[in-house]
Amino acid sequence: MKLWKIALIGLGSVGRGVAQVLKDNPQFIIIAAADSKSGVINPSGLDIEVLLAKKKTTGRCGDPKLSAARIAAEADYDILIEVTPTNSVTGEPALSTIKTALLRSKHVVTSNKGPVSLASAELLGIAEEKNVGFLFEGTVAGAVPILRGIKYGLAGNKITALYGVLNGTCNYILTRMEGEGLTYEQALAEARDLGYAEADPSSDINGTDAAIKLVILANTMLGMNVTLADVNQTGISGLTVAALHMANINGQSIRLIASLNPEKNTLEVSPRLLPKDNPLVVSGTLNAVTVETEYAGAITFIGRGAGSVETASAILADLLFITDKYDR
Amino acid sequence: MKLWKIALIGLGSVGRGVAQVLKDNPQFIIIAAADSKSGVINPSGLDIEVLLAKKKTTGRCGDPKLSAARIAAEADYDILIEVTPTNSVTGEPALSTIKTALLRSKHVVTSNKGPVSLASAELLGIAEEKNVGFLFEGTVAGAVPILRGIKYGLAGNKITALYGVLNGTCNYILTRMEGEGLTYEQALAEARDLGYAEADPSSDINGTDAAIKLVILANTMLGMNVTLADVNQTGISGLTVAALHMANINGQSIRLIASLNPEKNTLEVSPRLLPKDNPLVVSGTLNAVTVETEYAGAITFIGRGAGSVETASAILADLLFITDKYDR
Repeated sequence: MKLWKIALIGLGSVGRGVAQVLKDNPQFIIIAAADSKSGVINPSGLDIEVLLAKKKTTGRCGDPKLSAARIAAEADYDILIEVTPTNSVTGEPALSTIKTALLRSKHVVTSNKGPVSLASAELLGIAEEKNVGFLFEGTVAGAVPILRGIKYGLAGNKITALYGVLNGTCNYILTRMEGEGLTYEQALAEARDLGYAEADPSSDINGTDAAIKLVILANTMLGMNVTLADVNQTGISGLTVAALHMANINGQSIRLIASLNPEKNTLEVSPRLLPKDNPLVVSGTLNAVTVETEYAGAITFIGRGAGSVETASAILADLLFITDKYDR
Repeated sequence: MKLWKIALIGLGSVGRGVAQVLKDNPQFIIIAAADSKSGVINPSGLDIEVLLAKKKTTGRCGDPKLSAARIAAEADYDILIEVTPTNSVTGEPALSTIKTALLRSKHVVTSNKGPVSLASAELLGIAEEKNVGFLFEGTVAGAVPILRGIKYGLAGNKITALYGVLNGTCNYILTRMEGEGLTYEQALAEARDLGYAEADPSSDINGTDAAIKLVILANTMLGMNVTLADVNQTGISGLTVAALHMANINGQSIRLIASLNPEKNTLEVSPRLLPKDNPLVVSGTLNAVTVETEYAGAITFIGRGAGSVETASAILADLLFITDKYDR
């Protein structure tokens, strides 16, 4: 069995999930890790328990003088995993880290939406030129294998439209307003208490998070060339309990739907009325994507759109795709 | 662009769908075709329109002396597509046709459930030994990319359970009984009128068709080693409108669910009560499969489970997977 040497950049919730999952997969050894303040390298493999314990007790995983940038540029890894928080304006520092790794002919797996939404064409171009993998299943709909489902499961199909519930926080709030009659403010407070919404939930609530994922789908799966500015975007903060109640009386639900039409070149995120039996009317924090195709008709994928281990699952699938494809 | 030479065995509804779809994909040329009564070979490529017109007007595609078996054994193709009707008892004649092709180191793509449910281990073994592809996405849930979704999208995940609506005929009947209050007999008659049920619908109604697909999933995706006899099977013919009505009052629906638990080694097809917001409660002829996994949680795939062009879509995805993987 070939051993694959991993550099793990980011030790937040997703990074810790990745570390846990890799413990069960002995073909991978983590030879370097970094958080925002420090880094550590051990060519014969880091002890994952020790790494996570040190991070937990000291807030740092290693030496403050060893940065993620230096690890990306100098460490002897096969695959770099980038799971730091998304910066949707510049993509940094993840964008530079990823570019450094690809230019060194290293495989890269990421769940970071910033670099992929801003620069997928450039990064995929470098990966192709260097004959390495650049995979990012975890950027869209968490554990749901939507990218690979489209690319390999629906190969040869022209996609005529795509609709999705891509933000679990909004979906949780709408489900609770609809089901329990909570106000928007009450439902948001509950989502915060449960850890489904961040302290500043604005990028979820105003539709930006869903719009970023829509841009990734558009550019990497449908051959479009768009940016966040091309998405016509409306959030959920204006929705009232009365509107949801009225929809309910008519057998409908309101969901925040991200949609695109490749022929008209339109992208939109907005609250939409859907019949209750539409597969996109999922509950709680679930995500769902419907792809309308030429031959296969409409195909829907549903599952958990976020979470530490769920995102780690997408990253693991990407890793195994690379080890399968490039193990020569 | 490499030209891939196709032998198309079977010119029923699915075979005609495949021929239509291949017209739009010029990297494939059909160099041989067969129906149950005749066959035709043209090493420089058959004219698809002429082939389909001849089949339509005469009931035969070619020479009565040229059989599918001879084409499989002698024609100079790269990929054999087997789309004749399923024989779930012997798998023949498809099983022999497929084995002949694989033993000649030819790739095989099929939507025929017989050979795959009866002999997947043997056939996949030959394919591996000969280093060719043996793919059968179309055997389960039609256009829904459930096999590739599990294999590549959920790689590395342990599957702890699987549940699915795998028979569109039963689902149509149950949807109509529930929604319109039709009796079982009325709904079945309607399904027949619309072409959703065959003249003899017994293998749909008694759960056998769903059980065969469950066996394919168990053996090829979950590493089990089971046969149709291992499936605990109950059909839908005993269901009354009253039972569906009672379920409805309680916010539930009844669906014919195929399920398996790999740890307990149990397989079952039976009508089950589900909450209406369960993603498996799909309408009409749709199929749906939920896969419960260790890391990714529950992932659900929904789409059209049958149909000529829909099944052809799955076959096209298989073909493109082969051309991508083996084009060296």
